[in-house]
Amino acid sequence: MDLGRYKIVKDPIYGYIKIYDHERRVVDSSAFQRLRRIKQLSVADIVYPGATHARFSHSLGVAHVVETMVRDIVRKYRVRQHDLERYVVLMRLLALLHDIGHGPFSHLFEDVVLIPRNLTHEDMGAEVVSKIPEVAEAVEKIINEYGYKLRDVEVALKCSKGAEWPFRGRIQDAGSEKSFFYILKGVYSADIIDYLLRDSYYTGAGYGSHVDWQRISYYLGIYGDDVVLDYRALDSLEQLMLARIYMFSTVYYHKTVRAASKFLGDIIAMIGSKRIIDFDEVIKNADKYVELDDYSLIYNSNVIALKEVKEYLYRKIPYKLVLEYRLPLSNTRTPVELITRSKDVIETLLEVELRDRGLDVTRGHSFFIDTPKLSLNPMLSADEIIIMSEGGGLVRRKVLEFTWFSMPKIAMLLRLYIRRELKDKMHVVREAFNTIFSEEAKSFY
Amino acid sequence: MDLGRYKIVKDPIYGYIKIYDHERRVVDSSAFQRLRRIKQLSVADIVYPGATHARFSHSLGVAHVVETMVRDIVRKYRVRQHDLERYVVLMRLLALLHDIGHGPFSHLFEDVVLIPRNLTHEDMGAEVVSKIPEVAEAVEKIINEYGYKLRDVEVALKCSKGAEWPFRGRIQDAGSEKSFFYILKGVYSADIIDYLLRDSYYTGAGYGSHVDWQRISYYLGIYGDDVVLDYRALDSLEQLMLARIYMFSTVYYHKTVRAASKFLGDIIAMIGSKRIIDFDEVIKNADKYVELDDYSLIYNSNVIALKEVKEYLYRKIPYKLVLEYRLPLSNTRTPVELITRSKDVIETLLEVELRDRGLDVTRGHSFFIDTPKLSLNPMLSADEIIIMSEGGGLVRRKVLEFTWFSMPKIAMLLRLYIRRELKDKMHVVREAFNTIFSEEAKSFY
Amino acid sequence: MDLGRYKIVKDPIYGYIKIYDHERRVVDSSAFQRLRRIKQLSVADIVYPGATHARFSHSLGVAHVVETMVRDIVRKYRVRQHDLERYVVLMRLLALLHDIGHGPFSHLFEDVVLIPRNLTHEDMGAEVVSKIPEVAEAVEKIINEYGYKLRDVEVALKCSKGAEWPFRGRIQDAGSEKSFFYILKGVYSADIIDYLLRDSYYTGAGYGSHVDWQRISYYLGIYGDDVVLDYRALDSLEQLMLARIYMFSTVYYHKTVRAASKFLGDIIAMIGSKRIIDFDEVIKNADKYVELDDYSLIYNSNVIALKEVKEYLYRKIPYKLVLEYRLPLSNTRTPVELITRSKDVIETLLEVELRDRGLDVTRGHSFFIDTPKLSLNPMLSADEIIIMSEGGGLVRRKVLEFTWFSMPKIAMLLRLYIRRELKDKMHVVREAFNTIFSEEAKSFY
Amino acid sequence: MDLGRYKIVKDPIYGYIKIYDHERRVVDSSAFQRLRRIKQLSVADIVYPGATHARFSHSLGVAHVVETMVRDIVRKYRVRQHDLERYVVLMRLLALLHDIGHGPFSHLFEDVVLIPRNLTHEDMGAEVVSKIPEVAEAVEKIINEYGYKLRDVEVALKCSKGAEWPFRGRIQDAGSEKSFFYILKGVYSADIIDYLLRDSYYTGAGYGSHVDWQRISYYLGIYGDDVVLDYRALDSLEQLMLARIYMFSTVYYHKTVRAASKFLGDIIAMIGSKRIIDFDEVIKNADKYVELDDYSLIYNSNVIALKEVKEYLYRKIPYKLVLEYRLPLSNTRTPVELITRSKDVIETLLEVELRDRGLDVTRGHSFFIDTPKLSLNPMLSADEIIIMSEGGGLVRRKVLEFTWFSMPKIAMLLRLYIRRELKDKMHVVREAFNTIFSEEAKSFY
Repeated sequence: MDLGRYKIVKDPIYGYIKIYDHERRVVDSSAFQRLRRIKQLSVADIVYPGATHARFSHSLGVAHVVETMVRDIVRKYRVRQHDLERYVVLMRLLALLHDIGHGPFSHLFEDVVLIPRNLTHEDMGAEVVSKIPEVAEAVEKIINEYGYKLRDVEVALKCSKGAEWPFRGRIQDAGSEKSFFYILKGVYSADIIDYLLRDSYYTGAGYGSHVDWQRISYYLGIYGDDVVLDYRALDSLEQLMLARIYMFSTVYYHKTVRAASKFLGDIIAMIGSKRIIDFDEVIKNADKYVELDDYSLIYNSNVIALKEVKEYLYRKIPYKLVLEYRLPLSNTRTPVELITRSKDVIETLLEVELRDRGLDVTRGHSFFIDTPKLSLNPMLSADEIIIMSEGGGLVRRKVLEFTWFSMPKIAMLLRLYIRRELKDKMHVVREAFNTIFSEEAKSFY
Repeated sequence: MDLGRYKIVKDPIYGYIKIYDHERRVVDSSAFQRLRRIKQLSVADIVYPGATHARFSHSLGVAHVVETMVRDIVRKYRVRQHDLERYVVLMRLLALLHDIGHGPFSHLFEDVVLIPRNLTHEDMGAEVVSKIPEVAEAVEKIINEYGYKLRDVEVALKCSKGAEWPFRGRIQDAGSEKSFFYILKGVYSADIIDYLLRDSYYTGAGYGSHVDWQRISYYLGIYGDDVVLDYRALDSLEQLMLARIYMFSTVYYHKTVRAASKFLGDIIAMIGSKRIIDFDEVIKNADKYVELDDYSLIYNSNVIALKEVKEYLYRKIPYKLVLEYRLPLSNTRTPVELITRSKDVIETLLEVELRDRGLDVTRGHSFFIDTPKLSLNPMLSADEIIIMSEGGGLVRRKVLEFTWFSMPKIAMLLRLYIRRELKDKMHVVREAFNTIFSEEAKSFY
Repeated sequence: MDLGRYKIVKDPIYGYIKIYDHERRVVDSSAFQRLRRIKQLSVADIVYPGATHARFSHSLGVAHVVETMVRDIVRKYRVRQHDLERYVVLMRLLALLHDIGHGPFSHLFEDVVLIPRNLTHEDMGAEVVSKIPEVAEAVEKIINEYGYKLRDVEVALKCSKGAEWPFRGRIQDAGSEKSFFYILKGVYSADIIDYLLRDSYYTGAGYGSHVDWQRISYYLGIYGDDVVLDYRALDSLEQLMLARIYMFSTVYYHKTVRAASKFLGDIIAMIGSKRIIDFDEVIKNADKYVELDDYSLIYNSNVIALKEVKEYLYRKIPYKLVLEYRLPLSNTRTPVELITRSKDVIETLLEVELRDRGLDVTRGHSFFIDTPKLSLNPMLSADEIIIMSEGGGLVRRKVLEFTWFSMPKIAMLLRLYIRRELKDKMHVVREAFNTIFSEEAKSFY
Repeated sequence: MDLGRYKIVKDPIYGYIKIYDHERRVVDSSAFQRLRRIKQLSVADIVYPGATHARFSHSLGVAHVVETMVRDIVRKYRVRQHDLERYVVLMRLLALLHDIGHGPFSHLFEDVVLIPRNLTHEDMGAEVVSKIPEVAEAVEKIINEYGYKLRDVEVALKCSKGAEWPFRGRIQDAGSEKSFFYILKGVYSADIIDYLLRDSYYTGAGYGSHVDWQRISYYLGIYGDDVVLDYRALDSLEQLMLARIYMFSTVYYHKTVRAASKFLGDIIAMIGSKRIIDFDEVIKNADKYVELDDYSLIYNSNVIALKEVKEYLYRKIPYKLVLEYRLPLSNTRTPVELITRSKDVIETLLEVELRDRGLDVTRGHSFFIDTPKLSLNPMLSADEIIIMSEGGGLVRRKVLEFTWFSMPKIAMLLRLYIRRELKDKMHVVREAFNTIFSEEAKSFY
């Protein structure tokens, strides 16, 4: 593949993004073009009207960051030109394809439809790449040149551990290609970097706008099967992780965004249960699957006819937050952790308690408990990152051990929402909640 | 109305935009919420993938700029607090509503459906405001407080000349409220300012990103029925006008954007002619009209079934540009001007010429002439703006007389597109074109 | 004072900053103009070449932020127009003057010359304001109008506790004017906000660029003698505090910046000890004092003749970092804390240890220990801030208790620098250090 | 030279700028470090307080842009790796050195001291490079590797025509290395690009902030001894040229900036005429020359003692603008052009006229005429640029023939300033001016 031949696409984050000539068929495929109609942040534009961006530009952006990282890494090891080219071509391809299996409203569809069927959007991505001839052929044309098979791409898209990574060649004396797994899916991956920058830009929220990803990339290296980060980029890494936390707490987990997500999740479940769309069928059939997008789902004539969909479109969200706790969880088992596992238990207890007080409520409908967990250790369950110290020695460091402070491993939001109709019973609900569950944690609600 | 009571909405352009409590019902109405699903730039995101923003945030933005302008103006004339409040409330309301009559894909729908029926989106806006009770009541509640009627709002939304402006009170000794017409619809209006800033931000194109609108606003005043601009803001005004020209030539009139527009326009026409949607019916019925948006149109089950729509969704644009001329038109009648008026004539001649050469072509389908006119005198046909010189004297200046150079009154693009199937006959088409029309203007195609 | 009369100055951070007509004489005074020649970040432009900005624009910026805060606060309490005007005029004036007592290279001069004489730049500011007629008269002209005396301004500039604040009127029922102390000097003061934004912009470091100060200001209120922050701005406050920490660790305490500061501090001390400038004399004489700036100090013909000054000008910094520990200090007394208090002790021990190993070194010259303390609790020793919870209740919160994690009260850098001549003895120095001081904390050097 | 070995420096414009290891000695030299103390915009920070940036970061920036351009060009012609390296090393070196000959206050010193001696800052740059051993040796070490001599660098720095360019090798079949002359000094050179971006950023003026230089660079090629620009970057080029015009009219030629320049020019002339500094001596001696910078000049103990210098430092500019004309000059000889050549004549006539009216004035002191010429054809007297059209054909285009309009070849400002003492005679001066010179051009003063 000739890396001197490409077109450039204007992008507000990086100025321009290259699309190499050999990638055109992938990008032009219907499956990829459909990413233009899957919004990056699903329903967040209810609160942040600027956040209308789609997974299409995010996917291009990840390819851009991945290429920078690959080049910054191999520069350090005097890799031959031909190998550099191979790494760039392959890693960009995986970056472009990493979200191709997302359904309408991305994580919402995944939570409501895929997960219950033991599937993820990564699994669906592998399906799309292997079963849709237009995509499969375009991908094969690229990878065959380097002796890879379609199967390798599938495995790479699906794998969630470095150990499963299908590319295992040596990168000079420095380490193995397995380390590249981490620049796609690791703690400070190209994926995280692009979404923090892009979501900050489009929402205007700003937390991620100045993540110094170029510094992180510049100081990236490999060792064995791992990536290592030079200690001089540690402050930038910490900034990235904090930006991520604040984007979660202000944007992704904004109280109204979560309420709207719950409502839209209910609607998607309803579409399935009413058999308006037979999701089992759709999932088995990749061609059908890629016809789904945010709009084809909602504007399906039987869907748009639902009263709830009209309410959703006109932003009449039926839920209201009445209680919120922010709970940093310690690593040891705590009462709080118990609770996390038992959203169902709390909801059931609260239902009983409220009926005792004469309210005719149904859990999940009249009220619900929302417990989004903010894994402060992003993306993967990896506990450690590897830092190269000044003398060249390697230090393993806990992801959550910042220079100036430590973070709990997980933090949790515990929120209680009620339907708006119950608004004037809010005090009863709060009281009932406090009866079954007395919590020392601070709440501002 | 209490201007101390408002919510703030995060906006990537201005940081925050206020929504006053009294405006909530207008903003929450279905008709206004629908602006979230009408993209600001219709099809431009084909070329600029970042440009996914919608008329919803633009409308909020125009309200923000209008308020700044009103406050900057009245500050100069020691207007009473109560009058200031009245101006802010009214002008913001008109700003919020100024695009509420747009149909799906905005100007495309206007060109294909409204204009042939002697309507504009402003007319439809007046319809929406007066005929939909949810909107009408919300608007009346606000304006009745100041002694206005719904009819006044309708007139203000529709009027295209300062003389028709329905608000005619005195602003101290300085002039009349008719001057406010220009900050909504004039040469350097809040509308133009917001779209230049916003479209630049979302496309990443940058031309308008640094338009110094705060300086223009700061130096704005009134005189009689006109707005006047202090000479110290002249350079900023020129910058705004140039930004506008370059946004037109690179974004709005990008060759691929125009080809996609033509194609989508064909599709909309087809939807009408095949009676999939009865546009006459829809236009008569405001409630039906506001159910139309970019997605409800395309994902209508009979529309999505059209082969052309699938092609459009997957960005298979059937047209290719083969010739382009950029023609600054002098004010005097020229051969070129003649041509402008006769797109039909050229197309007919070219059809004949091509058939003579053995090609079986149909004009409008096999090829088409595109002649977007870039009125360098934006928005209105006003020829002059009023500048206040140092001594306080007023100078009328031709809009196109810049400090350092002059602009032609109108510039024109003349472009010839063919269907992709004819690609290998491109030289025949060019030859034929040159036979019927020899033009001295420079072309890079 | 008429707040409708002002000029605007272009500023890259806020677009424009107003200078009211009544402030012109203050801003035009030699003492204030001299702030153009005191760089905001002293020597940091050695590492960040963009950081050439001066205290002049910072002072204007603080006035801008203070005004926004005052207006956002009083908006909530229906304060009379005349009182609003008074607050704006007074608080802006104090903001403009808050750095007027800084000497050349700001904090460096303060550390080397003022502090040893029991003075601060705030004390010198009060001197400048009261002793230089040009300033005193300009200030009095403004404040006399509101019944204040020059003495009040002096006290306000010098005071470091809310209790000392000289303005004690009531702000409606809500609280007292003493609360305004905090918007000038508190945990999230206008001063901190402007320097984070401005230093981020000019260095390009970015940490503070998106501090959402408008949100903090919007949600600011008062209660009694305190400011309170609505819980909805908590995430923004945390972002501000984190930005501050990272600006300290990457910019203000950058290892090379600290080495250069040490060197320039040595030079300033030398200027005093060699009696090139009689600092005692200068400090007693406000007129002389304001003749000192970054350049008049260095280019004094006897100073520029010093070999060390030439080295400094050409960035030949004689020190090299060889060891660094980052130590979050717990609140309880620790061995580390002990050490903090005894930089002298460590240096002495190390000197002995090194001489034992045959190196002829002098502490402070051949090597030095640098222990900048990063008070994570900014500006003041206040332990708590006040948050208004949803129901309107007030909650006192520890400054360092973030939502998701806690911070140590103080963190410390312990760094060992040696002169470059000793470079090849680096291992001896490290060894010696480890002999006298074994520390469990992690170091990357 | 190994282009894999470099350090990165944070820069607010480009994020990071590389400094290759082999360039360190050049950058660390006293002559280059001194550029930190020569402000990029001399006195413009009087009006734009943010504009404190120095020629040091500008020089790094030009190297950054030049490298991007060189890489974008040679990518198109399959140049061998070794030649690419050579071009990058050489062109970056010239970029770094291009301003090394500037004196204090850059163009001001050039106008008052160098030009009258038939010298330019480019000539002085060649002197510095060849006569100061620290620089000469560092430069030779780099260029000898490629078979060049110090003499070649001198010639390249001084030459003002492509024909004089000392590097004349072939770049594959495409053209010759002489074309590289234009990316350093041409109509859309790296120098212009960096100063527009940087001056816009630091002033906050914005005109140049979004110049799409990456697009210009991407579409750059060579042909024969010339650079050619692909037609697809034409709009970006026009934007650059317009940005330049507006930066001139609002920043560089701001009326107060020009008054301050005149005043500082008077002071520099006085320093020479009073023999405080013997400029002839200094110019002959490169070592002495590089001791001059903005501050060493002003804070020289005999200079700072001048009353005028104190006035300058405290921004007491003694001149006031009373008349301004903006005159686009046609290419044909006009009365106006005559006048341009005779600033002296006008001043003399006006002096006579004013004395007749009883005012005891001296031209150049009591009043002066300022006629800055804005050559709209930047940098060079080249009349044409070369555009590559779609088919690959080359088109020569007049620089001033924009797509939508044309520019006059030169535009002129004619301004009359008087000393502030004459303020109440302003009408007499205007009258007198109009007596001797009646001009139809519009004036806002």
